[in-house]
Amino acid sequence: MNFLSTRRSRLMAATIAATTLIAVPASAMAAAKGTDRSRDARNAINGGKARSIILLIGDGMGDSEITIARNYQVGAAGRLALDSLPLTGAMTTYSVRKDNPSQPDYVTDSAAAGTAIATGHKTNDGAISVLPDGSAVPTIMELAKKAGYRTGNVSTAELQDATPAVFTTHVVDRDCKGPQSMGDCPFGTLASGGAGSISEQLIASNTDVQLGGGRKYFNQTTTVSTSQQATVLSQAESDGYQVVTDATALASVPATTNQKVLGVFADGNLDPEWTGPVATASGTAPATCTVNPARSASQPHLADMTAKAIALLDRASRKSKKGFFLHVEGASIDKLEHSADPCGHIGETVAFDAAVAKALDYQRTHPDTLVIVTADHGHTAQIVETGSISAGATATVLTRDGVGMTISYGTAPVGKSQQHTGTQLRIAAKGPQAANVLGVIDSTDLFDAMAQALGVRR
Amino acid sequence: MNFLSTRRSRLMAATIAATTLIAVPASAMAAAKGTDRSRDARNAINGGKARSIILLIGDGMGDSEITIARNYQVGAAGRLALDSLPLTGAMTTYSVRKDNPSQPDYVTDSAAAGTAIATGHKTNDGAISVLPDGSAVPTIMELAKKAGYRTGNVSTAELQDATPAVFTTHVVDRDCKGPQSMGDCPFGTLASGGAGSISEQLIASNTDVQLGGGRKYFNQTTTVSTSQQATVLSQAESDGYQVVTDATALASVPATTNQKVLGVFADGNLDPEWTGPVATASGTAPATCTVNPARSASQPHLADMTAKAIALLDRASRKSKKGFFLHVEGASIDKLEHSADPCGHIGETVAFDAAVAKALDYQRTHPDTLVIVTADHGHTAQIVETGSISAGATATVLTRDGVGMTISYGTAPVGKSQQHTGTQLRIAAKGPQAANVLGVIDSTDLFDAMAQALGVRR
Repeated sequence: MNFLSTRRSRLMAATIAATTLIAVPASAMAAAKGTDRSRDARNAINGGKARSIILLIGDGMGDSEITIARNYQVGAAGRLALDSLPLTGAMTTYSVRKDNPSQPDYVTDSAAAGTAIATGHKTNDGAISVLPDGSAVPTIMELAKKAGYRTGNVSTAELQDATPAVFTTHVVDRDCKGPQSMGDCPFGTLASGGAGSISEQLIASNTDVQLGGGRKYFNQTTTVSTSQQATVLSQAESDGYQVVTDATALASVPATTNQKVLGVFADGNLDPEWTGPVATASGTAPATCTVNPARSASQPHLADMTAKAIALLDRASRKSKKGFFLHVEGASIDKLEHSADPCGHIGETVAFDAAVAKALDYQRTHPDTLVIVTADHGHTAQIVETGSISAGATATVLTRDGVGMTISYGTAPVGKSQQHTGTQLRIAAKGPQAANVLGVIDSTDLFDAMAQALGVRR
Repeated sequence: MNFLSTRRSRLMAATIAATTLIAVPASAMAAAKGTDRSRDARNAINGGKARSIILLIGDGMGDSEITIARNYQVGAAGRLALDSLPLTGAMTTYSVRKDNPSQPDYVTDSAAAGTAIATGHKTNDGAISVLPDGSAVPTIMELAKKAGYRTGNVSTAELQDATPAVFTTHVVDRDCKGPQSMGDCPFGTLASGGAGSISEQLIASNTDVQLGGGRKYFNQTTTVSTSQQATVLSQAESDGYQVVTDATALASVPATTNQKVLGVFADGNLDPEWTGPVATASGTAPATCTVNPARSASQPHLADMTAKAIALLDRASRKSKKGFFLHVEGASIDKLEHSADPCGHIGETVAFDAAVAKALDYQRTHPDTLVIVTADHGHTAQIVETGSISAGATATVLTRDGVGMTISYGTAPVGKSQQHTGTQLRIAAKGPQAANVLGVIDSTDLFDAMAQALGVRR
């Protein structure tokens, strides 16, 4: 039986080194074979209040995407940081139809999916924390701020992108990202008496730490006063934000700062971490992923942004009983899966996992923190037999186990943008109220669990 | 906000009635919004020994397949019986390579997947509870029997099919189903001193209750003695089995019988429960699934077989401290997904869920029973936007919510057998040692959890 008893260690010792940006060691948390974990599970259940919440959303990161990243990065028997959260369940994600909100739309976009998590309300695709009738509903981050918690919002996408946007802004269409991009929100402009574009609302939200991309929208001129001609970014500075635009400047912000911090590190989304062959109709030769040479070195990694946000929020709330609410998004898992780019979405998942590790590091020394790791919707990628013929595009990557893993993208024709899917998703949690993710919950239930953990109400 | 507060009830009250064989009411177990479930979770954790185990495997039933069946049968906001188990996790399923067992094969077949669960050992695709070198390894059902537990094996497939076979038989190739079908197991025949075909080993296993299909293999002549010329089925009767061949005869078996029971209800696999349009390259018109008119009325449903097996095993073990180990497989979820038949695999998932409900009914009055619900490998079906174009075949079904749900099958060309996938799977449990499914476990860990719950060792 020796081949079996040594299997795990052999797999883990596989010498094919993946080219990685961020070394995530296989966790040593995996239970010894045949151990009764009942006591550990009982100890993991804490019905108390959370002083802080760190909510990490892997955009489009279903169970298939997690498995793909695990196989690639640490091998099939390895464990990612996100695997180590003790309490786990499944989450349903459907949105509803604008023309008939009593009917579900089984495949949500990130706007409706994020709104459900952030507000506890189902809405239609495209809506940013507004109901299908256009009325705004309060978000968990707004409620937390109002109740005296510090708040932070971090993403590898534009800060105006759907998932970060749902936490502090309210527009009827996700494309209304800047004051000059309000075509789909004619009644939402400041000039027309509305709440303004997503960019303007992000600044008005007074969120303590905001880190991500989206400079091109922040550089648009606000419409609040035609005489003023200020960009949203200069408005942010007037409103008391320290604005930083590269990784070095972010690292230099002292944890003791009294200023709010706005980090804007790219015109649009941050650059992908990894690169490799995109899937094709005839498949690809087995390839190892490489660091994306086109990635700007001035952009911080998601783990860097997460660690900095935690440090700033922790320090700012140190004298309060109330800690902070931080949202962290791994945005481009989704974006690179749309383009059938396996190294792209694996690299983003690995980078997201490194951010999860930062959150768990903090939770270890601050056990009154509730850490939640989940996704907003399913996506396309499926692991299939190497050498098989798929209906769509496939690519093969050479994993940490030293073997090829073939991934199929079949929800759209080859070369077209691959689709979201309607599957339920993994949700995992650690800390106070983590038991509320067990079993099967809906995305709107996650709002309730977080509101309860912080003791805030809408 | 009235559209939201009444959303769930409205969805549940949708008047489009699905044509169903088995009414599975939406469970009332869903927690009230914002309830702290910590106490419930703590109460669900029981580190004690299990008197009995009921292991239910939905073949190919990944999170996507569960979501599809839920949306169809009870609506997106409804809950299946299998959703109600309190402790949940994810399970990895990979097999290993015969030529190099230290390397994973990321997409397993049901033989290797079942072997991992039944024996705690990874093996190669096709192997039935033997290692890649061909040596047999003991199964949880064999260990339970040896320790004094009653045993049962139930499937909608041939009893010789991979998933039921792994619990009591050992052959190097899953196709060695009968004494005249041993081409791939030349050293396995009884005549050559081997353990015999799967059919012969099923009978020799002395399992108390075996219910499923596979008559054509049981009707083959055993090779143990050419003078004897007995079929495996007549051998079973000689060995003390009461053989029943239709639903009425099964229902008539008294719970107080002293005989072992072998139910063989079809030549091959049992007939599919439901029928509907198969996916095509151009999609289908929205359709409601219907009862399969070709299904033989003499075949019991999986829930009937499960309830009968529980009744027989419970009665037979009533005077013992040791209860029983029962395996129940919903086999044709997988088979009908291979053929891109949405109503087919939805119907089988719903029928499987009704069997889960029977197991949970028993568990309610016998809380020392560990009930586990999981799958053996992922599969192809993905919920995509209705009206979208997929790379593969699609079909649209009209759900309980009164809307269309479009399912894409893209892991093989249109018209070809769709593939298994390598995704991690949902695992859910209730009863003693159920906490061992939390987090991320491997299929081999499930063996350990079950062995520990029963207090048996290999």
